[in-house]
Amino acid sequence: MTKTTAVAPLRIGVIGVGRIGRMHAELIAYQVPGAALGAVYDSSEPAARGVAAELGVPAVASVDEILDSELDAVAICSSSDTHVDLLIAAAQADKAVFCEKPVSLDLAEVDRALAAIDAAGVPFQIGFNRRFDPAHASVREAVVSGAVGDPHLVRISSRDPEPPPLDYVKSSGGLFLDMMIHDFDMARFVTGTEVVEVFARGALRIEPSFAQAGDIDTALVTLVHQDGCLTAIDNSRRAAYGYDQRVEVFGSLGMAVSENPRAHTGSVITADGERRPPNPDFFLGRYLPSYVREWLAFIEAVKTGATPPVSTADARAPLVIGLAAARSLREGRPVRVEEVQPA
Amino acid sequence: MTKTTAVAPLRIGVIGVGRIGRMHAELIAYQVPGAALGAVYDSSEPAARGVAAELGVPAVASVDEILDSELDAVAICSSSDTHVDLLIAAAQADKAVFCEKPVSLDLAEVDRALAAIDAAGVPFQIGFNRRFDPAHASVREAVVSGAVGDPHLVRISSRDPEPPPLDYVKSSGGLFLDMMIHDFDMARFVTGTEVVEVFARGALRIEPSFAQAGDIDTALVTLVHQDGCLTAIDNSRRAAYGYDQRVEVFGSLGMAVSENPRAHTGSVITADGERRPPNPDFFLGRYLPSYVREWLAFIEAVKTGATPPVSTADARAPLVIGLAAARSLREGRPVRVEEVQPA
Amino acid sequence: MTKTTAVAPLRIGVIGVGRIGRMHAELIAYQVPGAALGAVYDSSEPAARGVAAELGVPAVASVDEILDSELDAVAICSSSDTHVDLLIAAAQADKAVFCEKPVSLDLAEVDRALAAIDAAGVPFQIGFNRRFDPAHASVREAVVSGAVGDPHLVRISSRDPEPPPLDYVKSSGGLFLDMMIHDFDMARFVTGTEVVEVFARGALRIEPSFAQAGDIDTALVTLVHQDGCLTAIDNSRRAAYGYDQRVEVFGSLGMAVSENPRAHTGSVITADGERRPPNPDFFLGRYLPSYVREWLAFIEAVKTGATPPVSTADARAPLVIGLAAARSLREGRPVRVEEVQPA
Amino acid sequence: MTKTTAVAPLRIGVIGVGRIGRMHAELIAYQVPGAALGAVYDSSEPAARGVAAELGVPAVASVDEILDSELDAVAICSSSDTHVDLLIAAAQADKAVFCEKPVSLDLAEVDRALAAIDAAGVPFQIGFNRRFDPAHASVREAVVSGAVGDPHLVRISSRDPEPPPLDYVKSSGGLFLDMMIHDFDMARFVTGTEVVEVFARGALRIEPSFAQAGDIDTALVTLVHQDGCLTAIDNSRRAAYGYDQRVEVFGSLGMAVSENPRAHTGSVITADGERRPPNPDFFLGRYLPSYVREWLAFIEAVKTGATPPVSTADARAPLVIGLAAARSLREGRPVRVEEVQPA
Repeated sequence: MTKTTAVAPLRIGVIGVGRIGRMHAELIAYQVPGAALGAVYDSSEPAARGVAAELGVPAVASVDEILDSELDAVAICSSSDTHVDLLIAAAQADKAVFCEKPVSLDLAEVDRALAAIDAAGVPFQIGFNRRFDPAHASVREAVVSGAVGDPHLVRISSRDPEPPPLDYVKSSGGLFLDMMIHDFDMARFVTGTEVVEVFARGALRIEPSFAQAGDIDTALVTLVHQDGCLTAIDNSRRAAYGYDQRVEVFGSLGMAVSENPRAHTGSVITADGERRPPNPDFFLGRYLPSYVREWLAFIEAVKTGATPPVSTADARAPLVIGLAAARSLREGRPVRVEEVQPA
Repeated sequence: MTKTTAVAPLRIGVIGVGRIGRMHAELIAYQVPGAALGAVYDSSEPAARGVAAELGVPAVASVDEILDSELDAVAICSSSDTHVDLLIAAAQADKAVFCEKPVSLDLAEVDRALAAIDAAGVPFQIGFNRRFDPAHASVREAVVSGAVGDPHLVRISSRDPEPPPLDYVKSSGGLFLDMMIHDFDMARFVTGTEVVEVFARGALRIEPSFAQAGDIDTALVTLVHQDGCLTAIDNSRRAAYGYDQRVEVFGSLGMAVSENPRAHTGSVITADGERRPPNPDFFLGRYLPSYVREWLAFIEAVKTGATPPVSTADARAPLVIGLAAARSLREGRPVRVEEVQPA
Repeated sequence: MTKTTAVAPLRIGVIGVGRIGRMHAELIAYQVPGAALGAVYDSSEPAARGVAAELGVPAVASVDEILDSELDAVAICSSSDTHVDLLIAAAQADKAVFCEKPVSLDLAEVDRALAAIDAAGVPFQIGFNRRFDPAHASVREAVVSGAVGDPHLVRISSRDPEPPPLDYVKSSGGLFLDMMIHDFDMARFVTGTEVVEVFARGALRIEPSFAQAGDIDTALVTLVHQDGCLTAIDNSRRAAYGYDQRVEVFGSLGMAVSENPRAHTGSVITADGERRPPNPDFFLGRYLPSYVREWLAFIEAVKTGATPPVSTADARAPLVIGLAAARSLREGRPVRVEEVQPA
Repeated sequence: MTKTTAVAPLRIGVIGVGRIGRMHAELIAYQVPGAALGAVYDSSEPAARGVAAELGVPAVASVDEILDSELDAVAICSSSDTHVDLLIAAAQADKAVFCEKPVSLDLAEVDRALAAIDAAGVPFQIGFNRRFDPAHASVREAVVSGAVGDPHLVRISSRDPEPPPLDYVKSSGGLFLDMMIHDFDMARFVTGTEVVEVFARGALRIEPSFAQAGDIDTALVTLVHQDGCLTAIDNSRRAAYGYDQRVEVFGSLGMAVSENPRAHTGSVITADGERRPPNPDFFLGRYLPSYVREWLAFIEAVKTGATPPVSTADARAPLVIGLAAARSLREGRPVRVEEVQPA
């Protein structure tokens, strides 16, 4: 639990300290060995000052104070629509960059940001933290090691305990780009192959008001991978029993699976049967180890000069799949990912 | 284990005593209370005589000897291409009829047979035994009772331990009509709603020789139900870890699941982790209770005059879905089931 | 499911066709390859005639008709107080003998019967069927293979769904000799070592009327094995959730466990948590495969001339442990098994 | 994850910042809502200064500086032999006291300390954190709610990944007072009844050098509760598969169980069977939520004036059971707990 302070920690500035940014700031401050929190910035000065005071670091008044500082890296955790400009500025300032997903909902913008990063040659990692969850990572390892053979079928379920507010949904890019994008990343990650075709079906079953945002709350998507592997992904905005993610790779030699644990291991069995608790209902508790581990991977990459493990191609591809899914839903037909490219 | 002999057992003749017919004959003879095996017939006389001798009943030389007898019911377990004529003859002979699936691979022929049954008004049950498996049935019960609310998403996996011989595949109607038809039935059964659209993707990953039969060995299918429920079904002809069927209904209030048990409950845990046995590799062992229970349901229906629980509409609908899946695969687009109807 | 008839099946006569004897007769008749049911005897002639008619074999009027016949083996399934005389008679008649447990509740009588068997040199197997259960057998295998290292601690739970009738209890020998004797056998079986000391505590918590029989319905026993391994066994005559047996060997390199499966694998999870079915409530269903497997082992041993896998020493030792447990409970102290020997 | 700062946090000084004390200091500083870390003390000044610097609080040079301060409470986390004097001093200084177990290995000393606490009337809580683990707590809840009925049988296993160093063992009081004391507490906690008799058997199977300390590394203990409930506790100093605690209460209406989760939920199944990860190997990760929850319970009790939930009687009783277990092992007989009382 205690972080061991390395000789020369990576000094990191956090931009944006809403729910997810504050969590990253706390992890960097308290729990990630080899990292040090250098400063925090938020467009809300009181928010920045509150977090800064609690964590014992300066709250700066502008992003430039971070970019012009001696800090080694920045964590971009502000609202999605600010990511592209911040990424370009950080790249030009020669900072290593960790960025929460998505880079942008606009593919041309994504390409503009990623081009700047590539041009500057700075280390870049996108925040697909689930790759670092020990259970999901074990599924990937079973593919890499050959234990399950060639992937033939993949099943991924992601279901949230509660839908987000309508206002959030309106600017989220929709279920495919806001929620299922994690699963598109997971499909690429666990199989190690690219997706070539997407077929999507969706429904509005939970929250009728989402119709105002033109969004759905329930979806089932088929992905065809370049090697013929077939992936089924289902999403729901509300699982009555809590937070539910499951990943399964079925291959020529066997199957690897991961799931969310129940809230605890207690169980009661009577003449009526056995009763166990539901799933936990909040992602921070479920995925805390994955956030720490994604930071460790980023720090290791920056220190050794290696490319971070979830880099520019991984930031772009799930967005493309998500755009293809949205088009498939609109047009009622399977869509090739190559159809979804900037003009 | 011991069958209790009822006062007036239903006397049943079994037509066809290959693997599945012999099993039905043994169940009727030894394990199904309220039933009595009256006679067996097989196009191979030695096969019929062997089974008859072992079970202590007559082997008859023609189907007519069964149809013209005093027997109450017939079990049609011969090869699929004989089912339609036998069904019509049995209906005209006023016998209650249990028939192994499928009625026919030809929808017009199915309709001809089912029309004869409806005209005669004889009890009819089709052999979708998985409905009677206690685990899968508990999923249906969770929908009927309202425990899981309205079904939003269904996931069904069916994977066999080994692919059948190429010769079998050639006359089987293909994966959708031979194997996934059980899952199409299951999707209708657990949700209680009809399917309106099918999208299929398939691949040949296991047994390249199936290309000679124009068949696939791996498939992923999306079903859209009339109420908007979305179902994903995956099939594989070879699961290295044994026989695998899983059913899941996710609804507005929760989720119900069923799966195949491991071969036994033993487990060993060392520094390398925990090791449990693979799945059983044979369907008879896995589904034996379901076969007994489907007979009990048939007998109960015949005795009380009720319609058997898996009757003519249930014999027809999965075939239509399977034909739509095959067309979807051929044409690369979602297919409405109403597109698949006899001229 | 179908038994394959071997060229020269072992012809077996069953003595006693109450619940357990009838089951053995049916298994031999229908499900055990390599065995043939030759005749049945029961002290109740109508019972014998009923089973004989159903299974298509003769009902004989005396035990001698079986012992003087050409049959290869006898299965002694009559009431416990007849076992010793039948064993001696069967040994003198040179029959291979399968005997339900216990040989006798009187150790001197046990020794008299086993001496007769040893003197005659006939194959002998005692009916500790749980050794043949695939799950429990896998625990033993994990010890034999060295996977779990040297056994340090063993935990065994056995709990029945319902207590037997008081009349049965009065002649049963008490909980230690009637019920826990299976667990004493299991402790020796899975560890492969003898027990040297027993400490027992018991209580009457479920069925106060058992006080009339001087019996308990709940017990916890500590066994010390000759190599220092320590075993805890608990028994209850009533588990509200069904039939429960669990075995665990903890050793220097890991742990092996087995348990009873739930009634089926269905599960429902809602906001209130997950619900699974209780255990099955009847031992025949739970242990059917073990009964078939114990017959296969017996037949194999008889045919090859090997000593059956659960033979005279295994018939005697659990009884001695049970007698030591009873004395420990009476005297409130640990008892060495060597204290319990015939005068 | 973020602690919410209450209006008037309980200000706590931590005495002793070795492994467990440092953890408590960090929890109070960062993760326990309603608490504030006021100061730390350690007999090693550099250790105190290091922790103080990291957590941003003063390191004081003497215990008196804490006792004479305005702080509301002290956490006694120093070595066990200092607990009695510190408890008495803290009571006299009118501080609320949280104390790591054990109070002392000497029952007369325990009584002296607890008498001082009772005399001063200060809130006191002993650190039996496992009571606050959600899984184990659910077992207790199933007894309190009546779900499992009257407890008849309890099974508790506790096994550590690795034995402690011999030097630690020499001053630990031995396995019963150092390790199994948690399980004695658990037996009282989950049943809600006192223990009246103890029978212990132990062995040295893992670490022969412990013979120098007169200690064992493997033990099996029977407890008889005042209502006749029977408890089996087994302990091992080394489980090859990781950290293992399991609790089971079997009662008249059913059974409640808890166990340690596997390291993660990933699983791979092939023709060789299923493989899951071993248990986690460190107690801090396993029991972190329980430590936070025990602090919340303490703070709530202090703020409301209620008696903390694990108070003086709970500090004393497990020690008495442990002393009885040690005597039982020495003397080879069951020992009544009333035999173990100060002169």
